[in-house]
Amino acid sequence: MDERRLKYLIQEKKYVTLKKELEEMNEVDVAEILEDLDIHTALLIFRMLSKDLAVDVFAHFSVEQQRDIIGLVTDKELKHIVEELFFDDMVDIIEEMPANVVKKILLHAKEEERNLINEFLRYPIDSAGSIMTIEYVDLKKAMTVKEALEHIKKTGLNKETVYTCYVTDKNRKLEGIVSLRKLVISDEEKTIEDIMDRDVIYVHTHDDQETVASIFKRYGFLALPVVDKEDRLTGIITVDDIMDVIDQETTEDFQRMAAMSPTEEKYLDASIFSLAKHRIIWLLVLMISATLTGGIIMKYEKVLETVVVLTAFIPMLMDTGGNSGSQSSTLIIRGIALGEVELKDAGKVIWKEFRIAIIVGLALAVVNFFRIYFFDGVGVLISFTVTFTLFVTVVISKVVGCILPMIAKKLNIDPAIMAGPLITTIVDALSLVVYFSIASWLLNI
Amino acid sequence: MDERRLKYLIQEKKYVTLKKELEEMNEVDVAEILEDLDIHTALLIFRMLSKDLAVDVFAHFSVEQQRDIIGLVTDKELKHIVEELFFDDMVDIIEEMPANVVKKILLHAKEEERNLINEFLRYPIDSAGSIMTIEYVDLKKAMTVKEALEHIKKTGLNKETVYTCYVTDKNRKLEGIVSLRKLVISDEEKTIEDIMDRDVIYVHTHDDQETVASIFKRYGFLALPVVDKEDRLTGIITVDDIMDVIDQETTEDFQRMAAMSPTEEKYLDASIFSLAKHRIIWLLVLMISATLTGGIIMKYEKVLETVVVLTAFIPMLMDTGGNSGSQSSTLIIRGIALGEVELKDAGKVIWKEFRIAIIVGLALAVVNFFRIYFFDGVGVLISFTVTFTLFVTVVISKVVGCILPMIAKKLNIDPAIMAGPLITTIVDALSLVVYFSIASWLLNI
Repeated sequence: MDERRLKYLIQEKKYVTLKKELEEMNEVDVAEILEDLDIHTALLIFRMLSKDLAVDVFAHFSVEQQRDIIGLVTDKELKHIVEELFFDDMVDIIEEMPANVVKKILLHAKEEERNLINEFLRYPIDSAGSIMTIEYVDLKKAMTVKEALEHIKKTGLNKETVYTCYVTDKNRKLEGIVSLRKLVISDEEKTIEDIMDRDVIYVHTHDDQETVASIFKRYGFLALPVVDKEDRLTGIITVDDIMDVIDQETTEDFQRMAAMSPTEEKYLDASIFSLAKHRIIWLLVLMISATLTGGIIMKYEKVLETVVVLTAFIPMLMDTGGNSGSQSSTLIIRGIALGEVELKDAGKVIWKEFRIAIIVGLALAVVNFFRIYFFDGVGVLISFTVTFTLFVTVVISKVVGCILPMIAKKLNIDPAIMAGPLITTIVDALSLVVYFSIASWLLNI
Repeated sequence: MDERRLKYLIQEKKYVTLKKELEEMNEVDVAEILEDLDIHTALLIFRMLSKDLAVDVFAHFSVEQQRDIIGLVTDKELKHIVEELFFDDMVDIIEEMPANVVKKILLHAKEEERNLINEFLRYPIDSAGSIMTIEYVDLKKAMTVKEALEHIKKTGLNKETVYTCYVTDKNRKLEGIVSLRKLVISDEEKTIEDIMDRDVIYVHTHDDQETVASIFKRYGFLALPVVDKEDRLTGIITVDDIMDVIDQETTEDFQRMAAMSPTEEKYLDASIFSLAKHRIIWLLVLMISATLTGGIIMKYEKVLETVVVLTAFIPMLMDTGGNSGSQSSTLIIRGIALGEVELKDAGKVIWKEFRIAIIVGLALAVVNFFRIYFFDGVGVLISFTVTFTLFVTVVISKVVGCILPMIAKKLNIDPAIMAGPLITTIVDALSLVVYFSIASWLLNI
C-alpha cells in the first residue's frame, strides 16, 4: 500500500478496506507505515488491527513509537501486548524504555515473568544471554514422534521457532536436538531417543555475541541452544537476531577503523553532542601524535630552507604511505574478523605483504619518477630522492599495516583500532625521516 | 576430536572407532579435519564415512580439496556425490572447477540436470538466480494438510529447507506460502488454500544479491522465493547462504573504502600479483591527484621560504582533515549500506555534520592553540593561523565527507568509493589553500 492510498482510505474513513489491506501485509511494512503517521492516527489504525498482528507490529516499532503507544493505550490493551510479545522482544523493549514506562509494563507481567525479566537484564551487554529467547519446544526422550507432534501442536503456536526442538532431561540438561523436519518425516511410533541428534553444538549464556555469530556462519544453523554454567538449557538464539548482531559488529569495526569510539545509536537518531563525543577523543590523540611529524620537519628545517621544493612532495608521500598502509591493515583486520587470517599465519602474512609492497612500490616509483622528472622538470637528484622515499614508504607502510592488527589481536585489543588513521600517523613520521635523511645525504646539505 | 586423537586412531588403525566418532560430528568439523590431512589419508577416511555424511562433508571442502578428491574417487563414488549434492552446492562447485573436472562431473549428471546447470551458470554473478537452489517443497492449493504432510514425508528428505512450502498453480506461478509450522499445527482436513499466506514477498532471478540480503534482514525470513520474468517460481534462497552474501558485500565495502578494487579471493589464498593488482590502480590515481597539493605548495613557495615553521604543521593539518572527513564519510557510507540513511535525508545530514564539525573543530582548536602557543612557543600570529586553519579544515572535511557518499549514491556509484583516501586528497588541497591564504594575509607576506 502506498502513502497516497493510505491517506485516501483514512480520509474517506474506509476503515473496513483499510483493515483488510493491512491484515494482508507483512508486520514490518505495517509498522513502517504507522511510524510515518501522527501518533493519534497511528493509534487509531493500530487499534483496528487484529490482536495477533497488533502485537507483531508493536514489536517492530521504533523505541519512540513504542513509548508513545504505551503511553496512550488502555491498561487492558497493554496487558494483551505484554502477554503476547515474544520474550526476547519484551526484554529488548524494557531495556530501551524510560523507568515509568517499564513500571507500567511490569505491572502487567506475571510474577514469574517479572523474575525472568530481571534475570535477563543482568546478562552482560552483547552476551549470548542478552540476545536469547526463552520460547522453544522442549521434548523428552521417551516421547514418541506422534506425541511430540501433538505437543508442538498444543504449545507451539507462540514459539518463535519450532523448527529445532530440544530434548532435555529432568534437570533441564540438554540431551539432544530434533528438527521439525525429522519429526515430520519419521515414523510416528519411533521415540525421540531413536531419532534425536546427540552431538549438539551450543553456547553459554556469557559467551560473546560475536562468537555466537561466527558459529551460525560456520554451521548455517537456524537456531542455537544456550546453556548456563550447569549446562542446563536456558534459551535459544535464532538466526534472524544474529543477522542484526553481524551488522552491529561490522558497524563497530567500521567506526573503530575510522577513528571513532563505537556506538549502537543510529546516525539520524543520535544527538550532535553524542556524535561529536564519539569523534573528538581519537582526533585529539591523533592530532597530538602528529606533533612528532612537526618535530621531525623542524629538525630538518635547514634542508627545507635550502631546497623548498622538497616541501611540495610531503603531502604526496604522506598520503601514499597512509593509503598503502590502510590497504594492508584493512585486509588483515577484515581477515581476522572473518576468521580467515589467524595469528599462526603471521609469518606468511608479513612475507606476503613485503613482496606485494615491492611490486606496488616499484610500479608507483616508476610512474612517479617519470612524472616529476620529465613533466614537472624537477632536478634528477631531487626526483630520485622523492622516488626512493616513495618506494621505501610503501614498503614500510605495508609491513607496519599488516603487523599492527596482529599485535592488537595478540594483546586482545580489537584489531580494528589499528586501521588507517593510526597507521597513517606512524607511517608519516617514518617516511619523513627517510625523506630528509636521503635528501640531506644525496644533496649534501 | 582433536588432532592428536585423530592421528592416534589412524596410526593404530582403529577405523571402527574413528568412523563412529566422525559420524557423530557436524559435517563442517569433519571437513575441516580432513582438509588438514594429506590427500591420501583424507580420501581413506572420506571413504569410510556413511554416504550421506560423505556428501555433506564434500560440500564443505575447499575448492582445492574438492578438485583433488574428484580426481581420485571412482566413477561410481563420483556418481553418488553428484546425485546427492544440493543443487546450489553443485552449481557453486562447477563454477570453481577446471574444465576437465567439470566434464567429469557433468558426465554423471542426468540430462535434465545438465540443462538446468547450464541455465544456472548463465545468471549474472551476484544475482538472486546465482545463489538460489531448486530444492523446495511445492504444494497445490487443493491438497489437504494431511496430503501435504505426506507429500513432504515422501519427497522432503533431500530438500535443503522444508520449513517454508510454496503453493503454485499449474503454470508454476507462485500463489502463496505455508510454513511447516502452520502445517503441523493445523487441522488435518483443512486445505492448503485455507491456511496459506497469499501476501508473498519474493525476488526476481536478476535482482542483486544485496537487495535479497536486505529483504532477509528486514523481515527475518528463513527462505525467500525467486521468480522469473513471467512470475513463475524457479527457486528459493535460504538464510544460511545470505549470511555469506552479507559478509561478502561488507568485505567489498571495506576494500573499496581502503582504496582497493574489490575481490572475492581469500587473502591467504590469493597470489601476490593478484593482491598487488587490486591495490595499484587506486594508489596511482591518488598519488597523481596529490600533484595538486604539490602545486599549491609551490604557488606559496614565498610564504614557506619566509616562515619555514609553517611547514611543520602541514602534516598535522592534513591528517586531522583526513581523519575527520573519514569519520563522517564512514558513518554515512555505512548508514546508506544499512538503509538507515537515505537520499531524502541529505539536508538533515549536512546540517547535522555542520554542527558536529563546529563542536569538534572548536574542541580541537582550543587544545591545539594551547599546545603550540604555550608549549611549542610559536608566535601568536602563527599559532592563530594554524588554529584557525585547523578549525576550517575540520568543518570543510566533515561537510565534504558527508556530501560525497550521497552524491555517489545519487549517481548510482557505490558510496564506499567516497571514503577516507579520496576525501583525504580533496581535503588536503582545500586545507592548504586556506592555510596559505590566511598565513599570507595575517603575516603580510
